[in-house]
Amino acid sequence: MDKKSYSAPPLVGKNLYYFLPQQVDGSVHLQNVLGSKGAHLAEMISMGFPVPPGFTVSADMCQIFYKNNNQLPEFLKKEIQQAMKRLGEEMKCHFGDNNNPLLVSVRSGARVSMPGMMDSILNLGLNDEAVKSLAKQSSDEWFAWDCYRRFIQMYADVVLSVDSSLLVFFLEDLKRLKNYKKDTELTVEDLKKLVQCFKDQVLQATGKYFPQDPEEQLYSAISAVFNSWNNTRAISYRELNNYHHEWGTAVNVQAMVFGNKGEDCATGVAFSRNPSNGEKHLVGEFLVNAQGEDVVAGVRTPLPVTKAMANGKIELTLEERFPSVFKNLNTVCDRLEKHYKDVQDIEFTIEKNRLWILQTRSAKRTFKAALKVALDMLDEELITEKETLFRVHPSAIEQMLHPSLDPKAQKIKMTQGLAASPGGVSGRIVFSPEEAFQAHSRGEKVILVRTETSPEDIKGMISAEGIVTTRGGITSHAAVVARGMGKCCVVGCDEVNLDEKSGQMKVGKYCLKAGDIISVDGSTGEVFMGEVPTLEPQMDDNFQRFMSIVDKYSKMRVRANADHPREAKTARQFGAQGIGLCRTEHMFFGDERIISVRKMILAGKEREREEALEELLPMQRKDFSALFAAMKDLPVTIRLLDPPLHEFLPHRDMEIKELAEKTNKKEETIRERVEALKETNPMLGHRGCRLAISFPEIYQMQVRAIAEAVCERMDQGESPVPEIMIPLVMLESELKFIKELVEQEIKAVQEEKQKTFKYLIGTMIELPRAALVADELANHADFFSFGTNDLTQTTLGISRDDCGKFLPSYVSENLISEDPFATVDQKGVGFLIKRGVKLAREIKPNMKIGICGEHGAEEKSINFFNELGLNYISCSAYRVPVARLIAARSHIGHKEKK
Amino acid sequence: MDKKSYSAPPLVGKNLYYFLPQQVDGSVHLQNVLGSKGAHLAEMISMGFPVPPGFTVSADMCQIFYKNNNQLPEFLKKEIQQAMKRLGEEMKCHFGDNNNPLLVSVRSGARVSMPGMMDSILNLGLNDEAVKSLAKQSSDEWFAWDCYRRFIQMYADVVLSVDSSLLVFFLEDLKRLKNYKKDTELTVEDLKKLVQCFKDQVLQATGKYFPQDPEEQLYSAISAVFNSWNNTRAISYRELNNYHHEWGTAVNVQAMVFGNKGEDCATGVAFSRNPSNGEKHLVGEFLVNAQGEDVVAGVRTPLPVTKAMANGKIELTLEERFPSVFKNLNTVCDRLEKHYKDVQDIEFTIEKNRLWILQTRSAKRTFKAALKVALDMLDEELITEKETLFRVHPSAIEQMLHPSLDPKAQKIKMTQGLAASPGGVSGRIVFSPEEAFQAHSRGEKVILVRTETSPEDIKGMISAEGIVTTRGGITSHAAVVARGMGKCCVVGCDEVNLDEKSGQMKVGKYCLKAGDIISVDGSTGEVFMGEVPTLEPQMDDNFQRFMSIVDKYSKMRVRANADHPREAKTARQFGAQGIGLCRTEHMFFGDERIISVRKMILAGKEREREEALEELLPMQRKDFSALFAAMKDLPVTIRLLDPPLHEFLPHRDMEIKELAEKTNKKEETIRERVEALKETNPMLGHRGCRLAISFPEIYQMQVRAIAEAVCERMDQGESPVPEIMIPLVMLESELKFIKELVEQEIKAVQEEKQKTFKYLIGTMIELPRAALVADELANHADFFSFGTNDLTQTTLGISRDDCGKFLPSYVSENLISEDPFATVDQKGVGFLIKRGVKLAREIKPNMKIGICGEHGAEEKSINFFNELGLNYISCSAYRVPVARLIAARSHIGHKEKK
Repeated sequence: MDKKSYSAPPLVGKNLYYFLPQQVDGSVHLQNVLGSKGAHLAEMISMGFPVPPGFTVSADMCQIFYKNNNQLPEFLKKEIQQAMKRLGEEMKCHFGDNNNPLLVSVRSGARVSMPGMMDSILNLGLNDEAVKSLAKQSSDEWFAWDCYRRFIQMYADVVLSVDSSLLVFFLEDLKRLKNYKKDTELTVEDLKKLVQCFKDQVLQATGKYFPQDPEEQLYSAISAVFNSWNNTRAISYRELNNYHHEWGTAVNVQAMVFGNKGEDCATGVAFSRNPSNGEKHLVGEFLVNAQGEDVVAGVRTPLPVTKAMANGKIELTLEERFPSVFKNLNTVCDRLEKHYKDVQDIEFTIEKNRLWILQTRSAKRTFKAALKVALDMLDEELITEKETLFRVHPSAIEQMLHPSLDPKAQKIKMTQGLAASPGGVSGRIVFSPEEAFQAHSRGEKVILVRTETSPEDIKGMISAEGIVTTRGGITSHAAVVARGMGKCCVVGCDEVNLDEKSGQMKVGKYCLKAGDIISVDGSTGEVFMGEVPTLEPQMDDNFQRFMSIVDKYSKMRVRANADHPREAKTARQFGAQGIGLCRTEHMFFGDERIISVRKMILAGKEREREEALEELLPMQRKDFSALFAAMKDLPVTIRLLDPPLHEFLPHRDMEIKELAEKTNKKEETIRERVEALKETNPMLGHRGCRLAISFPEIYQMQVRAIAEAVCERMDQGESPVPEIMIPLVMLESELKFIKELVEQEIKAVQEEKQKTFKYLIGTMIELPRAALVADELANHADFFSFGTNDLTQTTLGISRDDCGKFLPSYVSENLISEDPFATVDQKGVGFLIKRGVKLAREIKPNMKIGICGEHGAEEKSINFFNELGLNYISCSAYRVPVARLIAARSHIGHKEKK
Repeated sequence: MDKKSYSAPPLVGKNLYYFLPQQVDGSVHLQNVLGSKGAHLAEMISMGFPVPPGFTVSADMCQIFYKNNNQLPEFLKKEIQQAMKRLGEEMKCHFGDNNNPLLVSVRSGARVSMPGMMDSILNLGLNDEAVKSLAKQSSDEWFAWDCYRRFIQMYADVVLSVDSSLLVFFLEDLKRLKNYKKDTELTVEDLKKLVQCFKDQVLQATGKYFPQDPEEQLYSAISAVFNSWNNTRAISYRELNNYHHEWGTAVNVQAMVFGNKGEDCATGVAFSRNPSNGEKHLVGEFLVNAQGEDVVAGVRTPLPVTKAMANGKIELTLEERFPSVFKNLNTVCDRLEKHYKDVQDIEFTIEKNRLWILQTRSAKRTFKAALKVALDMLDEELITEKETLFRVHPSAIEQMLHPSLDPKAQKIKMTQGLAASPGGVSGRIVFSPEEAFQAHSRGEKVILVRTETSPEDIKGMISAEGIVTTRGGITSHAAVVARGMGKCCVVGCDEVNLDEKSGQMKVGKYCLKAGDIISVDGSTGEVFMGEVPTLEPQMDDNFQRFMSIVDKYSKMRVRANADHPREAKTARQFGAQGIGLCRTEHMFFGDERIISVRKMILAGKEREREEALEELLPMQRKDFSALFAAMKDLPVTIRLLDPPLHEFLPHRDMEIKELAEKTNKKEETIRERVEALKETNPMLGHRGCRLAISFPEIYQMQVRAIAEAVCERMDQGESPVPEIMIPLVMLESELKFIKELVEQEIKAVQEEKQKTFKYLIGTMIELPRAALVADELANHADFFSFGTNDLTQTTLGISRDDCGKFLPSYVSENLISEDPFATVDQKGVGFLIKRGVKLAREIKPNMKIGICGEHGAEEKSINFFNELGLNYISCSAYRVPVARLIAARSHIGHKEKK
């Protein structure tokens, strides 16, 4: 005996929890100790439902097991022995008595379901002798040997780690030889042969005979469950989800009931409501004379539970074949649903016409079903409005707003990149924005495939159905712009070898050229060969009603990032409560205006620059006026020009030539200027408000356009309040300087137009220094908006355009669990935001503070922002509904925590 | 009368401070109130020296003046009237009495000398009547009219803002007409004519007659002094130097003594020791029959004070012409020097063979003189060792270590950039590193002129005498590398239009081609046409002795950034106490090894990469071994590979062709790889320890080379302790991962070689996030080194390679006072460093922490690091002596503050 074994458990709770009709130790509230499965078994037996009796080994024993060198400690073994004796008394048979054996199932059960954990073992307790008694007792030799065959098969796989495909191979080989279609066609002799064959395989693989001692079987099975808690897959999963390794798993030991004991037996699965569409009626499937996972494993095709589901086909439903069991099942489902206030997914077994419930849990469902169920249950007064909000997962909403590839369609996967913007589309490959534009004009659907995109490509991106890039992360230019447009996009497909010049892309064995058709799934990052059918999105009345409930419960406002009037309209359709970020530079890429922009940049003298700016003024004024009109006096935050000027200049020969003609300059002059403006690290270069320090006239023009646009709207009886935002500020002196510039220009327009209007001047906090001197900046700002994209780039020193090359290694090496451009990095970036908010509110307690990075629609980030007391979040229009839901949930959760 | 005038001064101190033989209100300790000039006048008169009597208007009156609408308040005027009366009694004449007028000088005097402040006004009190009395009293009409002429000229310029060049023009015109060479040749008639002419000009320019009322003259002059405190130039200067605007300036009103009263009169300047070489004897210059600024203004060539200075030339020295005055002057100088314990710069006037002292101050001196004077005074027991350290300015040391352009040489300035690395050199222009290398091999001296440099250019940079770039800031690649080499360098000459291809550079009217000679001053940033003679640096015994005193008083160690054994040797010569940063990548650019490096990068498979690394291993081992040997067991911090791999790849066709041949790869393959590795923002890209996550074998090779090198040195009886530094860490998991990698490799080598040795593993803190999670990182690090260059780049979001385009505007708009790459930004970057140190020391109270950015040799930054309790600073070898001095001064200052 192991001397190191524990003598006494240092725990408060029990080590074993019975669930017997006479004694139920557990309840649904003890999920942390019993696991989800064990807790529900206890709850159901308390409610008087027919649950086979058993007991749950506490999850706390898991750590004890590890500390005891992965051995069950003696005290626990003793308790288990006692429990098995009690269970035998209950079932009127005895564990280990080969003449009247007690058979049990052993199952894992953690507080949350987790991949990689051990599967069930059924019929434990059987051996070469007991199987004979079982045959005699049941007068059913076939049943007994089928149980033994199943037991060895499962035990070998799960406890002894024998390659399970080997055993399955023997089973299938025998069926093929004998020309059987179903397992039920196997004869008793076949089963006996299989048992012998399986035992031989175990001996060969493990060097040991298959264990005949039921106690040894039981201890090994329980140990296997505990060990499975710490297999690699489970550990990775927990790290990824920030679950604690200390939680451990419980183990459920339960007396067997048999669905494979003849034609009056069955096993099945039922849902209290339809998980596909949410309709309120029982649905499910069952198999006659079957056991355990047969239904799920697809050994035979299962039959429908209800007549309605049979769709008039001549199939024998449970409703018809077992009418009284069906009635019972209906009652059980109904009561469980009312008890748990959610759709239940129930496993049941019928033994000799008697119903047994083996498991219940909340049912997984489609978004459509989730929405309907939530609202129906609200109407049925089963749940409150607040609870309704937790019945629909935010990510499901995002899926819903875009067409998607049919999950049932056959697909040939070509490669996988990062899922940058959801949706599913098919189209012909084009390798340049020009081709995209031209093909689109011809009415063709195209997918734009590029190394990466730049602001020059916008026109082509608008023309394409979807965008695929070989570089860049989920906040690269392509990704951000695509999300803004609600366009399907996959980025960072780094397996793809792209040759834009020769018009070819190679990936693995595939070589595609322009014109070939591919399909893109922006929700998974997959790219497929050929066309894949799509499903249309649905925004029905349920959705509208649900969202109206959502907005009742959120404290933070949700705004949209929108640069064009059409995006503003989309944003309002999706319920945006303002524009949190209008990137004025995106307005600069229109056909006419890009020429004026380029003229401005190429200007040698201030006068030339002013002329170009005068050309741009009316265009910008029109943009802003339309934007204000679209938002109907909701707040609109306009960020003044941000990107470095070289982003607007052409780089291709043809374009340079064209520009030379239009501006009357030499091609060489333009090339020189392009060269002179090049930057080593444009992200950290001459951009943002730094442009306005060098060329104040650019911001002056933009501010004038904003102010004149406000006056235009005032003439229409509207009263927009523009929020002018200054980007990339790092110094108090910078903000002061530009604020004065802005104020002077507005004052000038107000005097000219003889009008006064309100306006706010604020700044982006997107550099670490800005967050650290937020108090100084607050003196000169009416509002702050944290630009979490750039703040993440600078705080972590990661260029989002380049991280595609190294971040994947970080994920594969488990160095990071979350993409910092998707979920805000709380320790680094989060610290700066927190400090920024604190410093700013010390100066101005009611300062309006928001964020406008890509984190504005991500759950953990929004929870964080809500805790910090931000006033609003802003995200791309298509993510507004998601963000609204998260904001509401976050606020409810936050208030309840208090 | 102005009703708003103040009735009572709300001040503790006096409004006026007398300095009369009978009453001295001030002293040298009241410089904040009296200004430097007034305080010294008071001090000197207390010591019994012949100082013309007078009084000082307190600097506190300056603010009163502003608050009183820039008017002298009545109470002050009254006090001034009383004081003038008292002064008249002292001088036996009366201010405002045209028959026996008191004449005074009015001078500004702030606590620090400041450009833009008002100059002196002499002979105030004269008018059309008084001049006649003065002539009569002195029996010297010429003297009287010369005084009046001077007075009007100064007053018109300084108080009435009449364009002074106009008056000078009339004076010069008259002299030309009359064929005079000196002012003294003017006749009385000439002077009278000039006075009339000057008065006419004043009338014409101001519309008012020249004021005849002495009181009005006096109040206006005092007001002008107060106003000059707030002129634009003075304000800018104060903002630049963080001087308070509230300080204000004092005003000195002093009875006139006259050096222009005949041949027994003179005016002059004397130094108590020679300010050029520090030798201990009086030197100075004087002019007979002259007044005020004549000596400095160069109206006539002044004569030497001492015979020694006359160098045997037949000149009448002061010593010969005024022997008793000379003796007095000698005594005064001697006593003042002993009193102030520093070399004095004295202004004096001789009136009728009587000596008057008008001013004394610490003398400006050359570095050589400063050094000698400091050590001499130490030996003379005038000052202590600690005081010695404050008598030599750190920046002077840096000058001293490099040859410099002869300041007296004639020069044609071509352009000016940023002073990146000191020294003065001349050479022929080359536009490519290859040309530099070839010209150098032919024995030619060349200046490498480029847009910017990259690591590929190192060979050419070594070959050049100096480097000029048109882009980049003072921490750009060119600047950092040049400073490391101690090579003269000017960067960011953005006026220069460079065409490397055609081999031309244009700037303004100049157009130069390869082969033309230019001269570069790395201490000022100036670039000159043609050759300019240079002065050689001097590191004499005084220097060595001084530095040995320095090291007695510093707490922080000073290490050098050195990448090559030869740099390590230089560093030791300059007294470095270890290597704080060895950038291993600089070792990768040798002729043979760059091929292996490129092979490694181009490797398609891991095996290929390993082969290339095996080639590099012996080379790196040799490097490290030599480095350890050069440092003789002083600590050596080796940073593992940091830059992105693309920096090592060739970009020029020829080089690609060559590489293709040497590696047996297709040119196209190489081009593809170069293209694939390109990054949008390399600074934030795939570099630092991110390389080791993707390619652990690179760091493994480097660590093996370090460990094997240590074993090699151990065989020689040495015992180096390598400090292995991991760059660009942002996550705890990253550091943990790489630390394990490093430890495993060292263990492997130790086992192979059957040796054990100590080593440290630490990390750079160069990203904001790293500083914010320093506690987490401290768990896995033996030391930290703040990489303040990159930390500044990320915290402020400024790319040092690109900031040349916008930072100059920030300076010209007065938005920043200091280049954040030169002086550490305390509010942003400094906050992060402080927090990082705090968090780290909470985990490991004695953790070794240093910095290795360019801030390691800058005064304010070092003071800051000293206050934070850092263990060491590291800077380029040539700046080590400077840093040592600052560190010592900083520690003394810090301790005295406590």
